[in-house]
Amino acid sequence: MNTIIPESTVIRLSQMYRFLEECIANEVTTIFSADIGEHMGITAHTVRKDINFLGEIGKTAAGYDVVKLKNHIHEHLGLEKKRSACIVGLGNLGKALLHYKQFLGGNYKVIAGFDSDINTLEMVKTSISLYPSYRIEEVVKDLKIELAIIAVPSKAAQDVADRLIRGGVKGIINFTQVFVKSQADGALVRNIDLYGELRILSALLNLKEPLSS
Amino acid sequence: MNTIIPESTVIRLSQMYRFLEECIANEVTTIFSADIGEHMGITAHTVRKDINFLGEIGKTAAGYDVVKLKNHIHEHLGLEKKRSACIVGLGNLGKALLHYKQFLGGNYKVIAGFDSDINTLEMVKTSISLYPSYRIEEVVKDLKIELAIIAVPSKAAQDVADRLIRGGVKGIINFTQVFVKSQADGALVRNIDLYGELRILSALLNLKEPLSS
Repeated sequence: MNTIIPESTVIRLSQMYRFLEECIANEVTTIFSADIGEHMGITAHTVRKDINFLGEIGKTAAGYDVVKLKNHIHEHLGLEKKRSACIVGLGNLGKALLHYKQFLGGNYKVIAGFDSDINTLEMVKTSISLYPSYRIEEVVKDLKIELAIIAVPSKAAQDVADRLIRGGVKGIINFTQVFVKSQADGALVRNIDLYGELRILSALLNLKEPLSS
Repeated sequence: MNTIIPESTVIRLSQMYRFLEECIANEVTTIFSADIGEHMGITAHTVRKDINFLGEIGKTAAGYDVVKLKNHIHEHLGLEKKRSACIVGLGNLGKALLHYKQFLGGNYKVIAGFDSDINTLEMVKTSISLYPSYRIEEVVKDLKIELAIIAVPSKAAQDVADRLIRGGVKGIINFTQVFVKSQADGALVRNIDLYGELRILSALLNLKEPLSS
């Protein structure tokens, strides 16, 4: 892969990929950059710039060929690469994610779950192998797990992240309230702050509706 | 609020707000834009530009005063504004979110849950009021609910979104696999694609480790 592609472009292209899958499901065969941009909330210019990072792709007067563009992104982002994933923390959210259908197949398959509470490990019904948290480093190494989802209490987040990274995990989705940093030599972290999403929505709504104060 | 603040700035400032809360919890009193930027994965220049959108704020040689900056963002983004929220779809994920501690207090409080299955409504144990999905429009209107979290099966997503918006919902967090569009006169939508987050991580990892092909 061309390492010149910026991270923000990779993120947008990954999101574009999802949209193109949806287009194909809806039998849309060609699409303009403006349509993609409108859907994603970015400009048509950004769409074209992102796509151009992948090199030459044919465009007709009717826009991009949807299947061709999707395959182009797939190939250049290396989306055929399979990676194993695990979930740490099997409280309400972790358990829900463990049962999340999309995580059971596809290229990024959840193959292990961890919790520090032995009772929890015994109670959770799943076909996925569960382990006590003290075994994270060893199991992650043995099973060659590269991706992890953290849904532990906030105070345990950094410690769990450190152990995952020592085991060889390279990418983390963090659902705790604590922001876990991506590290130069460690793992990439995507922090998902559910409450923060509500805050963002509220702030954006304030933009549209002037405060009464 | 100054409507000139771009959406992307509002989003970053909301995320910065969370980080500043964390700084305060860790007894950090002053901070440089470079530190904020490093933490958030953006440049110090963007940090300063975003903060400057809020107008004059004092900065010393030791950087920003953390408490002052946090309060500044709080005030300018209107974060004191309280809004009620609801969750539609009480499967594994919806149920987990219903029990999510942060949603039970704070300014964006979940006060209602909906599911189309009456059995589910009877089974879920919660202090939050639950209603059948056919009542979405009416209940949302009555309770003046402005924010909603959608965790229904994908095929129901757009219909649920339409009903929420007709009831008066202005902001939606969408957890389904279907991308729901923000609408000019409708609601703002934040699409959270859990599987897509793994895809993004994998694509970003490919950037760091050249494909073997």
